[in-house]
Amino acid sequence: MELSARNKIRGTITEVKIGSVMAKVAVKIADGTIISSMITIDSVEDMNLKVGDEVFAIVKSTEVMIGK
Amino acid sequence: MELSARNKIRGTITEVKIGSVMAKVAVKIADGTIISSMITIDSVEDMNLKVGDEVFAIVKSTEVMIGK
Amino acid sequence: MELSARNKIRGTITEVKIGSVMAKVAVKIADGTIISSMITIDSVEDMNLKVGDEVFAIVKSTEVMIGK
Amino acid sequence: MELSARNKIRGTITEVKIGSVMAKVAVKIADGTIISSMITIDSVEDMNLKVGDEVFAIVKSTEVMIGK
Amino acid sequence: MELSARNKIRGTITEVKIGSVMAKVAVKIADGTIISSMITIDSVEDMNLKVGDEVFAIVKSTEVMIGK
Amino acid sequence: MELSARNKIRGTITEVKIGSVMAKVAVKIADGTIISSMITIDSVEDMNLKVGDEVFAIVKSTEVMIGK
Repeated sequence: MELSARNKIRGTITEVKIGSVMAKVAVKIADGTIISSMITIDSVEDMNLKVGDEVFAIVKSTEVMIGK
Repeated sequence: MELSARNKIRGTITEVKIGSVMAKVAVKIADGTIISSMITIDSVEDMNLKVGDEVFAIVKSTEVMIGK
Repeated sequence: MELSARNKIRGTITEVKIGSVMAKVAVKIADGTIISSMITIDSVEDMNLKVGDEVFAIVKSTEVMIGK
Repeated sequence: MELSARNKIRGTITEVKIGSVMAKVAVKIADGTIISSMITIDSVEDMNLKVGDEVFAIVKSTEVMIGK
Repeated sequence: MELSARNKIRGTITEVKIGSVMAKVAVKIADGTIISSMITIDSVEDMNLKVGDEVFAIVKSTEVMIGK
Repeated sequence: MELSARNKIRGTITEVKIGSVMAKVAVKIADGTIISSMITIDSVEDMNLKVGDEVFAIVKSTEVMIGK
């Protein structure tokens, strides 16, 4: 399935921290920046996300701000 | 001012397209990925955003999805 | 690619309205409700979205409110 | 009060899971799809949300992606 | 209808600017701050929003960042 | 750093509640309204957010709805 969200940044999971209903997934991208993602624990389980997985951090364009 | 949004990815503006009330700002990051941002034309004008500017694409963690 | 966003509602595109940088895509779901989506015109063009297409309206769980 | 958010999908709560500060509320809509919503535990308590409640899952148009 | 979004800030509309598919609605709140809202032109028309209207600017808690 | 997010409302932190991965930060603004923010516990720790801090509640325009 193709997705309208335009931003897909390739990286590797460096941390998965399971909370009560939400989980933190950290993804290291090419320039070394760590991307922090907060998703449901349901998705972490269904997708079997774990440290070392090659994934994409995906963001809808309307959610991206610019800092200068 | 320090900001709680955890994701700040450094890059260079490669395109600014002004719409009627919204504008598209494209930012090229280190690995060559283009990040697409949709912000108000008011912010583009106030910040004087233009092609070649060194900026950060900023995203709140709750807005980041994972694709695998 | 599997996506962490948990909400994927099947429907048919009933309207595509191209704006200056954003576009409106309306999707009719099973119970007749029309889902309104605002995405970039870039995505509408890349995905060649048009009236009659079978698609999914996709929403991250943190973006869903409850009304009672 | 009328709300600008255009997407209001009718359904029935099938699960409420209380976390530490966030809660998961699952809503079954007409076609059987389960909508997952992550809201504050404060809202779950104030609105007294519980399994069986007839509610609306509400989403702002700018938060809806399209998958094809 | 009661809404789970916890942040409802009272104010007066000071500007409505209609774009191609999106519209900007500016709301002046008690301390003089102008809140900028980007919603669909469909909502502006359906709700007949105009300068001088007493309204609420409404934001889901997961969308609020902190700056210090 | 200047930020494209247009809405910055000044206030004082009245509550910090640490969850498992997310935290609730409540901010009282000039008219007495309490703004509820859900951010990562990582940000609360890095910014050392605590009751009594003078802060800004910051919201991207595309995240603001209107109620009338």
